[in-house]
Amino acid sequence: MTFDTQLDAALQRLHDEGRYRTFIDIERTRGQYPHAEWTHPDGSRKPVTVWCGNDYLGMGQNEEVLTAMHEALDATGAGSGGTRNISGTTVYHKRLEAELADLHGKEAALLFTSAYIANDATLSTLPKLFPGLVILSDALNHASMIEGIRRNGGDKRIFKHNDLDDLRAQLTALPANTPKLIAFESIYSMDGDFAPIEAICDIADEFGALTYIDEVHAVGMYGPRGGGVAERDGLMGRIDIINGTLAKAYGVMGGYIATSAKMADAVRSYAPGFIFTTSLPPAVAAGAAKSVEVLKRRQDLRDAHQTQAAILKTRFKALGLPVIDHGSHIVPLIVGDPVHTKVLSDHLLQDHGIYVQPINFPTVPRGTERLRFTPSPVHGRSEIDALVGALDSLWSHCALNRADLTG
Amino acid sequence: MTFDTQLDAALQRLHDEGRYRTFIDIERTRGQYPHAEWTHPDGSRKPVTVWCGNDYLGMGQNEEVLTAMHEALDATGAGSGGTRNISGTTVYHKRLEAELADLHGKEAALLFTSAYIANDATLSTLPKLFPGLVILSDALNHASMIEGIRRNGGDKRIFKHNDLDDLRAQLTALPANTPKLIAFESIYSMDGDFAPIEAICDIADEFGALTYIDEVHAVGMYGPRGGGVAERDGLMGRIDIINGTLAKAYGVMGGYIATSAKMADAVRSYAPGFIFTTSLPPAVAAGAAKSVEVLKRRQDLRDAHQTQAAILKTRFKALGLPVIDHGSHIVPLIVGDPVHTKVLSDHLLQDHGIYVQPINFPTVPRGTERLRFTPSPVHGRSEIDALVGALDSLWSHCALNRADLTG
Repeated sequence: MTFDTQLDAALQRLHDEGRYRTFIDIERTRGQYPHAEWTHPDGSRKPVTVWCGNDYLGMGQNEEVLTAMHEALDATGAGSGGTRNISGTTVYHKRLEAELADLHGKEAALLFTSAYIANDATLSTLPKLFPGLVILSDALNHASMIEGIRRNGGDKRIFKHNDLDDLRAQLTALPANTPKLIAFESIYSMDGDFAPIEAICDIADEFGALTYIDEVHAVGMYGPRGGGVAERDGLMGRIDIINGTLAKAYGVMGGYIATSAKMADAVRSYAPGFIFTTSLPPAVAAGAAKSVEVLKRRQDLRDAHQTQAAILKTRFKALGLPVIDHGSHIVPLIVGDPVHTKVLSDHLLQDHGIYVQPINFPTVPRGTERLRFTPSPVHGRSEIDALVGALDSLWSHCALNRADLTG
Repeated sequence: MTFDTQLDAALQRLHDEGRYRTFIDIERTRGQYPHAEWTHPDGSRKPVTVWCGNDYLGMGQNEEVLTAMHEALDATGAGSGGTRNISGTTVYHKRLEAELADLHGKEAALLFTSAYIANDATLSTLPKLFPGLVILSDALNHASMIEGIRRNGGDKRIFKHNDLDDLRAQLTALPANTPKLIAFESIYSMDGDFAPIEAICDIADEFGALTYIDEVHAVGMYGPRGGGVAERDGLMGRIDIINGTLAKAYGVMGGYIATSAKMADAVRSYAPGFIFTTSLPPAVAAGAAKSVEVLKRRQDLRDAHQTQAAILKTRFKALGLPVIDHGSHIVPLIVGDPVHTKVLSDHLLQDHGIYVQPINFPTVPRGTERLRFTPSPVHGRSEIDALVGALDSLWSHCALNRADLTG
C-alpha cells in the first residue's frame, strides 16, 4: 500500500460510515447573532440562524468585551510575541489569571491557549509531580481529558459514567498509599447531564484522592457569579483543580485551571504544553477578562439562558421529539444514525436556513448520533417557532420515531 | 508523602538547580516596540527594551494587521463560538488557510490554535493513518514534535542532530516495506543552525519516506515570499508536510500545516487536537491572513532582519563574547550555567533596562544555558549600542570567559 492509497482508505471509511465531516462556512454579523451568513461551496450566500454555537450567552457580541479587545489592540498590538516565560507575559495575562482565581475562590489560575490543552497538559503533568499517581476517569470524559490521561502512559482506571459504586469499588481495590486523582466533568456536553459533585468529593475525602473537574460547559452559566456548577452547589472549595474555558460562555478564546498557588506553580513549571507555546494575544486576554468580570454580575443572562432552554425542551416534548432532558441548558435530539442525522441537518440548512451540525462518532457513541441545539438569550420567540416548525415537519416527512426518549 | 509535600519537593528541585522560572511582566506600547513597560512585582513600572521576543519582524505592530483585526472584531465579534466542525468555521479561517496553502505551494493548509498543537496533533495522528509508521526524529526536535511522536506510543527512531549518516544507517536497518517519516526542523531555534534539507529529501526519496518539516522559526523570514528555508532553497515541493506558526514572524497567534489536500483532509478528520477544540477567533485569523499576505511582498523587512542579526553577531564577536553563529537570525550567547545566566539576565533587566530571558534546561541541554537575543528591523543603532555596552561590562564584571566559542 502506498501512502496515498492509505489516505484514500482512511477517508473512504468515514464516507462509508456516513460520518465524513463537511465544515459549514459561517460568518456572523455583529449584533445580529444568532443570525449569520452561510457561504455555500458554490460561493452564494444565504442567511441562517445558528443553533449549535457554544457562545451560549452571546458574549462574543458583548460591547464591553469588544471594546476591551479594541483597546488592547490599540495599546499593545496583535500577538504577545513569545511564550509566557520568554517575553509573552503581559499585564493582560496577569489580570485575567487574577480574575479567574477570584471567580473560583482559588489562590491562582493558569492560562492555556485552550481548555483542550489545559486538560491535556495538566492531566499529563500530574503523574510527573506525584509519582505513581492513578487517575480515576469518568467513562464519558471529554477527548482532551482522555488524551492528557493517556499521554505519558500513566496509570488510570475508567469508572462507569457517574457511577459512585463503581468509583468506590475501584478506589477500594487500590492500595491505601497510592496517590489518586478523580477526574470528571460537571456537565457532560453531549447529554447535558450533571455529575454528582458532592458525592464524588465525599468519596475523594474518604480515600484521600485529589479532585479535578472540567467545567467548560458550565463556567459563566451556573453559580451566582458564573463560577460553574461547583459554585452553584457551594463545592468549589472541595475541588483541587477546576478546568474552564474562555471560548464558550465567555465568548472569546483560551482555557485555564484554577487551583492552589503551589499546584499552579508546579504545572506552570513542568507542563510542556504550557511552557513551549506562545501565550494568548493580549487582546484575547483583555476580552476574556472583561467577559469574566461582566458575567460575575449578569445573573439576568444566566436566567434568560435557562428559560430559553426550558422553553425549547418543553416544545420538543409536546411534539414527541426525542429530546434528552437532564435539566441543563443543553438540548440534544437523538436520531441514532449518522446518515439520517446528516440528512436532517442538510434539510434544515438548505430548506429552512437553520444551522445545526450533525454530531457523530467519535464525539458520541455510535447509535446515538444526534442534533444538539444550543438555545441562548438571543434566540427569540420567532427563532424558536421556526426551529420547532421545521423539525416537526421533517420528523413527519422522514417518518422518524417520536416520544421514545421523552419520558 | 502528602500531595503538598510532593509539590514542595518538585518546586524545590527547580530552585536548587537555579532554573525556577520567574515570568517578567511586560507591556508593549504600540508603535514603540521593542520598547515596553516592565511591571515590577512591587507594582512599579520601568521602561525596558525587549531583546528576546519572537515577533521577529515587528508585524505584531503592523498597521495593516491591526486594521484587519479591528475590522473583523467590528464585523463579526470576539470568538468563533465553536469547533471548526460545529459552527466555528468562518470565511476568515478559510481565507487564512488559502493564503497559507498558496504561501507553501501546497493544495491545502489546516489551521490549529498553535504550532505546538499542530505538531503534536499531526505527528500523533499519522501513525493512525499509516499503520506501522516509524518516525525518524532529529535529536534536537522541539518539545511539541517530541510530544506528538511519543503520544500514542508509536514507533520512533531518534537520529543524531543533522547527522545524515546516522539517519541513513537507521533507515537502512528498517525493513523496506515499513512506512517511514522523517521529522525535522529547518532552523533549530536554540542554536540557530539549519538542517541539510535537500540531503534529507534525497535520503527520503531513496527510502520512500515521507518528510515533515517544522519551519516555525523561518516562515515569514526566509524565502522570496516568506515561505521559509525550504522556499529559499526551492525545496517546498519535496516536503510532504510543512509546519509553521502565525505567532512569531507573523506576529499574531496560531499554527498550521501545509500539505496535500488528501493529507490535510485526513488529519482534519482524525486528529483529536484539531477536532475537539474551539477554532481561532475570526479577528486573529484575519490578522494572521493579512500578515502572511503583507510579508509575501516585504523582502525589505527580511533583508533588514538579517542585517541586524549580522551586525549584532559581528559586534559580539569583536568583543570576544561566546556567540554561536550559523548564519541565521538567531543570536545565542552561551553562559553554560543556569545560575550565572539568571544573574546576567537580572542585571541586564534591573541595571540596564534590557530584557532577555535566561534559557535553561529542559529548553536547552544542561551546561549550555544561554541568553538568546532576537534582533529585529525595529532594533536600531542605539538599542544595539546599549546592549553591547551592557554585556561587555557585565562580562568583565562577572569575569566570564570570552572567545572560546567565537571561532
